[in-house]
Order: sequence, then structure tokens, then C-alpha cells
Amino acid sequence: GWGDLGAFGEPSKETPNLDQMASEGMLFSDFYTANPLCSPSRAALLTGRLPVRNGFYTTNAHARNAYTPQDIVGGIPDSELLLPELLKKAGYVNKIVGKWHLGHRPQFHPLKHGFDEWFGSPNCHFGPYDNKELPNIPVYRDWEMVGRYYEDFRIDLKTGEANLTQIYLQEALDFISKHQASQQPFFLYWAIDATHAPVYASKQFLGTSQRGLYGDAVREIDESVGKILKHLQKLGISQNTFVFFTSDNGAALISAPKQGGSNGPFLCGKETTFEGGMREPAIAWWPGHIPAGGVSHQLGNVMDLFTTSLSLAGLQPPSDRQIDGIDLLPAILQGKLIDRPIFYYRGNEMMAVRVGIYKAHYWTWSNSWEEYSKGINFCPGQNVSGVTTHTKEEHTTLPLLFHLGRDPGEKYPLSFASDEYQRAMEWISGVVQQHKATMLPGVPQLNVCDKAVM
Amino acid sequence: GWGDLGAFGEPSKETPNLDQMASEGMLFSDFYTANPLCSPSRAALLTGRLPVRNGFYTTNAHARNAYTPQDIVGGIPDSELLLPELLKKAGYVNKIVGKWHLGHRPQFHPLKHGFDEWFGSPNCHFGPYDNKELPNIPVYRDWEMVGRYYEDFRIDLKTGEANLTQIYLQEALDFISKHQASQQPFFLYWAIDATHAPVYASKQFLGTSQRGLYGDAVREIDESVGKILKHLQKLGISQNTFVFFTSDNGAALISAPKQGGSNGPFLCGKETTFEGGMREPAIAWWPGHIPAGGVSHQLGNVMDLFTTSLSLAGLQPPSDRQIDGIDLLPAILQGKLIDRPIFYYRGNEMMAVRVGIYKAHYWTWSNSWEEYSKGINFCPGQNVSGVTTHTKEEHTTLPLLFHLGRDPGEKYPLSFASDEYQRAMEWISGVVQQHKATMLPGVPQLNVCDKAVM
Repeated sequence: GWGDLGAFGEPSKETPNLDQMASEGMLFSDFYTANPLCSPSRAALLTGRLPVRNGFYTTNAHARNAYTPQDIVGGIPDSELLLPELLKKAGYVNKIVGKWHLGHRPQFHPLKHGFDEWFGSPNCHFGPYDNKELPNIPVYRDWEMVGRYYEDFRIDLKTGEANLTQIYLQEALDFISKHQASQQPFFLYWAIDATHAPVYASKQFLGTSQRGLYGDAVREIDESVGKILKHLQKLGISQNTFVFFTSDNGAALISAPKQGGSNGPFLCGKETTFEGGMREPAIAWWPGHIPAGGVSHQLGNVMDLFTTSLSLAGLQPPSDRQIDGIDLLPAILQGKLIDRPIFYYRGNEMMAVRVGIYKAHYWTWSNSWEEYSKGINFCPGQNVSGVTTHTKEEHTTLPLLFHLGRDPGEKYPLSFASDEYQRAMEWISGVVQQHKATMLPGVPQLNVCDKAVM
Repeated sequence: GWGDLGAFGEPSKETPNLDQMASEGMLFSDFYTANPLCSPSRAALLTGRLPVRNGFYTTNAHARNAYTPQDIVGGIPDSELLLPELLKKAGYVNKIVGKWHLGHRPQFHPLKHGFDEWFGSPNCHFGPYDNKELPNIPVYRDWEMVGRYYEDFRIDLKTGEANLTQIYLQEALDFISKHQASQQPFFLYWAIDATHAPVYASKQFLGTSQRGLYGDAVREIDESVGKILKHLQKLGISQNTFVFFTSDNGAALISAPKQGGSNGPFLCGKETTFEGGMREPAIAWWPGHIPAGGVSHQLGNVMDLFTTSLSLAGLQPPSDRQIDGIDLLPAILQGKLIDRPIFYYRGNEMMAVRVGIYKAHYWTWSNSWEEYSKGINFCPGQNVSGVTTHTKEEHTTLPLLFHLGRDPGEKYPLSFASDEYQRAMEWISGVVQQHKATMLPGVPQLNVCDKAVM
């Protein structure tokens, strides 16, 4: 979550390495994910396209969150061009360490989509945990399945102990060493998942945080990032390596307080299109190129990492399709502010849009009364009347408008009658109209589950 | 509010000077005021004693917030020893710039209580605004009344324009210059109030913040603090001058969004004993003495500034009375952590106590249903069942216990049946018992109002 790093205001200040990364690089205060859920967010990161374009959504129900459980039939379509596929053209060798989440059938395998190496798993490590009713999640090295979570790769659900982050760290360091030695340019997608419930940390980190097990996991990630950056410096390639740290969705407040993080002053969390669900911590690091200690208010998105990475490699983004990511280099290297909207989708619905400092909600929904009555709450302790609604509320004719500078917590919708509302909505309506007019949704990949595909 | 500074996680990052002060000094993440309201907090700061001891409370009603309006009869008792009175013994010259708030009858005048100079007002600049029914708040230079707010010292309630912070800044700079030139040690209490509703800023700051008028006021304070620090450096006395920045209460969320600030991830705001009401931004600065960029998790309190300042001046705190403030120098200069409790009072009631990472609520109350039904809300958008209660709820036999590391937002009370609850409450109960056994309340000063004293 946005509020989980010391540099972003977490009171325990337990992320000295990430904070140092920010003080040596650039902190983004207004950086977003493309979706408040893991799979679609990662598909967007790697394609530079909104999930509704690249197929990572469902039409099974309106505004439904969907991801890739083991029995999902779909995955990343062959027609999508992934960042590593394109980087290959510039001679890059590409590795993914950790969670893939773009489909687990053979045609969706990372090595079919531009990656040269993989260590990790096709799905999240959460459930099943017993290998009785259902197979546990497999772990791969490249094409080979090398084991399963909870069997070969232990995660102790009672103590939270697992050494996976250490394994992922070693994979990263080895990959960097190997390709630095071979003088090959490389792209490493380090997709760790220790802060996803069931949260885990290595033995040496357990009990070290004031924040409980979740904080232990954050501390291990923080220290690992520090080791990766120091490794680049030790190898003498830090001035030649662009590093970006961010997250795929807001902290999952449903897992709080034992396994949930912080979205700082923002409303709600994961699975919602409020700021807490989609605004992310983000830090760019590239010594000698990025001015140290800078802060950028550029509206950024994980999809921008696609376009920005291509730009760094001297490549153009594909011109035969709509790319939503923009090149952030002018913002990062020259401090420019590029005018661009942020769209907040939930499944097949554009729930909200941010233009400048304004955010308009066309639909509001936290979660259903049915879920809520079972104790599932995406906004624990928070309740903004008419905003954190438990029924899907349509506001398409008169969107709820917030000024995120004066009201980052989305508590005070602007008066419909105000001049400010009229002016801002005129601007926003044009942006939304253009967006909708040119929107060609992809074939929804997350509609069909079938246990046979396990 | 805690969340109003960039260094504390405010997303607009509009406090470069205070952020730099933190990066050159020490940031306190767990620093508190002695009361969630202005007058009692300031009385505590200057006496090193809880308001219930120094008389800055009322017994008119249980747990009632009280301060010093113009018609209050009481004020700081002669029997209290104020910081400037004591510093005089070490040769200090003392000035208060801005809001006094410890009583406005002649016997309560700052120059009767150790200050040598004063520019400012005895009361807050809020109301009355019309000088018809009631006199406007007077402004003093030393013993002389030099004008009144809204008449001689303009605050434009429509635009928010007022140049008071600039006047206060000039007073500070001149005082520092004068006493540096005369080689006299000095104590400056710079008690600005631009972020108190009605919020104001000078013309050159109006409209400069993303956060609206409140942000304009914060920016002006930030720039002024920067100018004061630079002035110390220019005069060559920065290594010889201890500077501390903090606040007297949490941001007043009742004034949001137009005139209200941010308490970051914390619950509720001003007037409450939740973290949002009493945890404060705090930065210590003393180049050459305080290690740059440090963070201290020391539980601190504005009352500590009394004891710490005495320590810096080579003085002992009075031994004939209970002093609640501790000497923070071991925490600031040597990074030590001193075990000490934080008591959260509201009027005459100890509502809560923090010991270590635990906070126990003996009483919970946000505000009354009567106020709430009129639209007054101390916790807008927040609602924690059984915690942010609109009736005064007694928990003295079974306090609500929170772990502020895992749950800084006070959303998840620990289970009464847990071992952790038992262990923590055993510890806390001992601290509370001792506190109550040795408590000698002062004569309540805020019980009587009489228009004649205006």
C-alpha cells in the first residue's frame, strides 16, 4: 500500500532501504496501478494496456473483480505484445522472478511471451493449502515444474515463516551477475509476493517489525531491494541500470490487522477504485541520471513502465494498437508534468477517472451487502455516506467529483451546483467521451473456470 | 496535523523547508500533545505539567474540552512556574510571538509569567468578527494593546488573506538578530496560528497550494520556518540554537475540507483522544549536535520541551511539584529510548494511556449525538464500531486495547481473552494506578465565564 513505506509516511519507519532509494532517486506521489487487483494489474504492466483492452477482465458480472485462479481457462492472448518480447529486439535477456499471474496453461507460459528465464509460480501462493482436494500451486524453473508451495516450498501458515523472498532475492542477484558478466543488457521483473496473504517472512525477519508479520514481510522486501541496489553498485552498473519500485494494488485491508498493510490517508483498499485501492508507492532510481531526492507529482501508472522501458531501450511502442502507458522519462529526467488521465476500472466498468487534481466517480461500490454481512469489508473503519456504497451506485449522469489536493481521502464530493464542478466536469467529460469512443475491449479472458485445466 | 508535512506523508509534498529541517535534524514519529485542544496544550508546554495539574481544564462537565474564550475568568495560576520564568535564571531573554491562550486578565499576561517581550494576542483569532456585539480580539505589543483583529489586523474572511504570519516572522527574525548582537541567550516561542480556522495566508501564498487555503497557510508557515533557520545559519548561531517544531493538537477535521488539515493514517482529529487528535508532527534541529536525518520512536510530549529546554540551559526542573515532561536529550543526542507513558486527557478525565506500543482506552467519545446531529463531526468519514462512540462509553473495568504498531488507525481492539491483552493490561494497569494515586488536580481555571472580564 501507498502508506507502507517510511518515505510515504508509515509511522514505524521500517523501510530504510526503500527510503534511501527515494532519497537517491525520485518519489512519485501520484502513481497508480491499472486495476485494484493483481492479475489485471500485472497484465497491464507488461502490455502497457488497460486490462479491458488486453483481455484481463470478465463480463460474467458488471464491475466484477477477477484474476487467475488455478482453474481459470484464459490467460494472456498471443496477440498481446509483452515488454520482454519487444525488449528482445534490442538484445535484452529477460527474467521473471516470482508471481506471473497471466495464465498457467502452456500457451500462457512466460517463456512463450518473451521471458528467457523464470523462477516462480503461475499463480498466487494463497490456497489451496492441503494438496488433498486440489493440487497446490506449482513452482517453476523455466519450463520445468520444480515443486509446489506448502510441499516443496514451505510456507508455515501458523508462524508465517517462509524463505521464498530470500530465494527470489538470490535469483535476482545471480541473474544480474550473470548478465553483467556477459555484457548483455537485461530486464528483470522481480515480482515478489510476501505481503500477499498468507503473508510470510524468513526466520531472521520474524518478529522484527513493530507492525507484526506484515511488517516483517515488508522489512524483508525492503532489505532485499537494498541488496539488489548495492549489488548493481558493486558490479559498477548502477549508472547504467534503471530501477523502478511499485506495487500492483493497494493494501488489502480485508487482511488487516494481522496481514494487512496501510494505504496512508487514502480511502479503502485493494479491490476498490478509491485511492486506497489504486494509488501506489513508486520510486525511480538511476544514479547519475535521476536527480537525487526529487518528488514528482506526475500522474503515473504501472502501464507507463512498459513505454518508459521501451524508450530506455531505444524502442518505439507498437503502433498497431492503443497503448495506455506513456513515456515517463521527461517527468523523471527533466521534471516535466505531462497531462494525462488515469482510468479506474473494475472488471468491465470504468468506475472513475482522474484528470489533473480532480477525480470523478461514475460508479461507486465498495463491496456487496452479502459479502459485508459475512464480515468482508474493503473499507474497515471508513464510511463515507454515498461514496463507500455497498450497492453499485450509478453516477454517470452526475458524477461524484473530488478535489484530491484538498481532499485526498475522498470524503467531500464537490457541490454539483458549484462553478468548480461545472468547469472540472466539462474538462473530464471530454476526456471520458474520447476514451469511450475509441475503446475496443479485448476478448475477456477471465470468464471461464474449469477444474480440468488444473 | 501529523499528516500535514511532506516528511510525514502528506501526498502533495508542499513543505520543503520542514522536510529539509527533518533531513538535517531528527523526526519524531510518536510525539504527542498533552491535550487535544489549544489552551490546555499550550499551558502544558510552558509548565511541563498536564493540564489537570496546572488548572487548564474544567469540572463543569465530565470529559469536557475547554479553552480560553474572551469571557473566561481563569488563566495560568501564579503558582505555576513557566519555562521562561525559569530560563531567566540562566540569563535568557524570552519572547512570545503569536497566540498566548493562557488567560487575558492582567494577572495572566505573558510578561507577568516570565516573558520579556510579546507580540500577539491573548486569544485565538477566531470570532467575534464584527466588533458590534462583542469586542474583537486584541493584539498586544508587550503591555500595550496595539489594535484588534479584523479592525487593525485584517483577516479577510472571504479570501482568507491576512499578512499576520509575515508580521510574526519579522518579529521572530528581529528578536533573534537583536539578541544575537547582544550576545544574550534567548528563548523564542513562535506561536503562529494561520492553520486555525478561519485559516489565512498572505497574498503571495494565496492559491499556491494544491490543498486549498489550508495548504496556502501551511506553505507560508513552512517557508517562514525555513527563513528562521536560514537566519540562524546566517548569523552563525545555528550550532548554538536548539529548534523544535510541533503542534498543539491534531488537525481540526470539523473544518475540513476547506480549512482542515490531515492526521495521516490516524483516527479522528482535534478535540478527541484518538491518535488523530493528539499525535503531532515533531522535528528537532540543532546542526552539529543532532545526527542528520534521524528518526526517533521515543514517545514524546510537548511537556518534554519544558524539561528539555531547562536541561539545555543547565537548569533543573522544579522539585516541589510533579513535572510530567521528561528530558529528551538522551533520545535526541544519543538515540536512547526512554520508557514513559503518554496520558490522553479530555478535560478532567483520563480517557486513554499509551505504554510502549499499546494504547488503552478507558473512555471513548468522539462527540455528542446532539452535536453530531447538527453536522459537527470530529471523525468525518471514519466510523469504528464501539470506538468512535457518540455517547461517552466507559471501559474502565475492561479497557479497549490497541497495538499501535500493527494498527495505528485504532480500528481493531485486541481480544479481551488474548494473552497479549492480559500481559499488556497488567503492565498498563500498574502505570495507571500509580498515575491516579499520585494525581493532585489543580484548581480548574476554565470553569467560569463572565462577559464582564472582556
